Amino acid sequence: MKLVMLDYISGNPVLPEVQEAMIEAIKEDYGNPSSSHRLGDQAIEALELARERVAGLINCASPEEIVFTSSGTESINHAIKGIAVANADKGKHIVTSNIEHNAVLKSLRRLSKMNYTVTSVSVDKYGVINPDEVAKAIMDETILITIMHSNNEVGTIQPIKELAGITRAKKVLFHCDAVASVGVVPIDVQELGVDLLSFAANQFNGPAGVGCLYIRKGTRISPLLDGGGQENRRRAGTENLVGIIGMGVAAEIAHREMGSRINHTKKIKEKLIKGLNENIEDIIINGHPELSLPNLVSVSIKYIEGESIVLMLDEGNIVVSTRSACASGALRASHVLLSIGREYADAQGTLVISFGRDSTEAEIDIFLEVLKKTVSFLRNMSPLYQKNHVAVS
Amino acid sequence: MKLVMLDYISGNPVLPEVQEAMIEAIKEDYGNPSSSHRLGDQAIEALELARERVAGLINCASPEEIVFTSSGTESINHAIKGIAVANADKGKHIVTSNIEHNAVLKSLRRLSKMNYTVTSVSVDKYGVINPDEVAKAIMDETILITIMHSNNEVGTIQPIKELAGITRAKKVLFHCDAVASVGVVPIDVQELGVDLLSFAANQFNGPAGVGCLYIRKGTRISPLLDGGGQENRRRAGTENLVGIIGMGVAAEIAHREMGSRINHTKKIKEKLIKGLNENIEDIIINGHPELSLPNLVSVSIKYIEGESIVLMLDEGNIVVSTRSACASGALRASHVLLSIGREYADAQGTLVISFGRDSTEAEIDIFLEVLKKTVSFLRNMSPLYQKNHVAVS
Repeated sequence: MKLVMLDYISGNPVLPEVQEAMIEAIKEDYGNPSSSHRLGDQAIEALELARERVAGLINCASPEEIVFTSSGTESINHAIKGIAVANADKGKHIVTSNIEHNAVLKSLRRLSKMNYTVTSVSVDKYGVINPDEVAKAIMDETILITIMHSNNEVGTIQPIKELAGITRAKKVLFHCDAVASVGVVPIDVQELGVDLLSFAANQFNGPAGVGCLYIRKGTRISPLLDGGGQENRRRAGTENLVGIIGMGVAAEIAHREMGSRINHTKKIKEKLIKGLNENIEDIIINGHPELSLPNLVSVSIKYIEGESIVLMLDEGNIVVSTRSACASGALRASHVLLSIGREYADAQGTLVISFGRDSTEAEIDIFLEVLKKTVSFLRNMSPLYQKNHVAVS
Repeated sequence: MKLVMLDYISGNPVLPEVQEAMIEAIKEDYGNPSSSHRLGDQAIEALELARERVAGLINCASPEEIVFTSSGTESINHAIKGIAVANADKGKHIVTSNIEHNAVLKSLRRLSKMNYTVTSVSVDKYGVINPDEVAKAIMDETILITIMHSNNEVGTIQPIKELAGITRAKKVLFHCDAVASVGVVPIDVQELGVDLLSFAANQFNGPAGVGCLYIRKGTRISPLLDGGGQENRRRAGTENLVGIIGMGVAAEIAHREMGSRINHTKKIKEKLIKGLNENIEDIIINGHPELSLPNLVSVSIKYIEGESIVLMLDEGNIVVSTRSACASGALRASHVLLSIGREYADAQGTLVISFGRDSTEAEIDIFLEVLKKTVSFLRNMSPLYQKNHVAVS
């Protein structure tokens, strides 16, 4: 039985063209871009072509603004800690939101142990940040605002252009975690007006373990990895050229296919939400109804443990997630779902269904059918469900 | 004309078996090891097999002591900054040597801007550290000693077991940058008695952009990358599984072939040194005559600029390096060569010739022949050479 893959947010399948480019790079076995001989030259050429392709995807003013990293997480750590260290003479205050990714939250927690202070703004029931709250949180000592482009658990997209405008007017730097957005929806760093933007290749059918940090020219930031002069002196360490080449190809294809991918995933999303509402009672679709990612649906299914659904769906060859892979293993309720007002139990019963360019409507039909049976089975065993439904009827 | 590759220290050719394993991993397209479904399980299995293989190469007490990183540079940054941050309550003093890699020196420079102090011990004319000097440098506030296993420019191997013994007796942590050694000479972390050890796959015919940090169980260290719980909560970020799988295979082969590789490179090294001494006058072979890497020869060729030799050899299809690739681009004289007493001009005229398991004696013959002609040509144009040799004769 064919696998129905609906956990794209944990990492997309790598495109055949990307695989081919990586396999060719492995066979070619380019040298070290830092060598001062011909093997180095070939490697530099491949590296810079990938940089141009990635720069094109987010419309950088110059490819030099792209720094290749080992993941979205490294990009985020680099941005937050690098700005904090380089600008500590100006102040030690940072503003963020309640629904950021763990990489942001934990980087800030690390800094808070080093005498930095953090203000975290709340979100509304759809997970949207109020720009006025951000404006109010900025003080003389504020050196950085870090807010995500879209949320990886509920899909809500933030008003980044407006937020970056406020920030710029107050001469504070703005970092945007756009890991869940780049390659999925159009991102134009110049139009958004952000100073730093983090993203990763495995969100747009590229390889895992390769990321990028966009750093606007002239931004004062320290490296996270000190050592050699790689990446225009922004990030030391011999490059993962095979992965970087793969990211370049994936970026070019994502750029080219952006319109058709959005149309395709939007259709699937509509079908999925309609199907969920029609087939399963007592559910809540999380996130903003319009301002959200086209490739992700978060649904809280009352009276059930999400992990149990995931395991039963897995037996039926269907792959979904309870929340971001980065946070799995921890069985606590998602801070994002609690922030948008979900009850603890409902947060526990939440599925993140994410899909992409090769997902089909037929897969959604299979998913809905199996989910309906699974939910019915689990609810029949749930004392909480029985109690509530006896009480109601 | 076939390329004569004598710059293994900038990165070895990737073994066919390693390429095959990586290509298979790309085609299989494993999922994210952090996902809570079957694709995640396959990925975990591949990840943990690689971890066991790498742990075997350096004889860890447990595979859990291995943390995969994106490079030797990241491992070094993680070790030094992670120990500094986690142990700041005990003290802020670190001891190192004058001949460390840029990743060590610049990580320490970063810390020195954050009120850490650093004592750097000198080396003798062979590049060997005196353990007594290290013992004397340790104070009550000392939290870390960081000393390299072997030097990547001159090949000298340090008395690490003795140094780690001194350090342990004083209850200070010991980090060893073993990037140039692991996979080249036997490394046993338990026998050496180090607490942390950094290394990278591309020094033993594995892929570029993958490294490891060995962290002895119980060592108090902060992550460099904060976020998800990957790598036993030591390093956040989705893993570069393709590269890690490649590193695992390369480690297993390096372990198995260690004896024969050493015999092979030793023979080449002897032939090369003999040939240099017989064919070119006014040279100095750098590094310790016995306590040194079998796969590297550093030679200072008087009255010539090293970069000119590299470029001319390159035209003759021979690839060598003036110094480590990480430091190239910068045309300053090597701090390592100055530390062992080379004059500035002689440091500038130094070649690093490095080789490996697939290098041949025939390649050394070709190299020596072309080098002899090149040196003669360049010296004939060198006013400094003319002056000195007129004066002598």
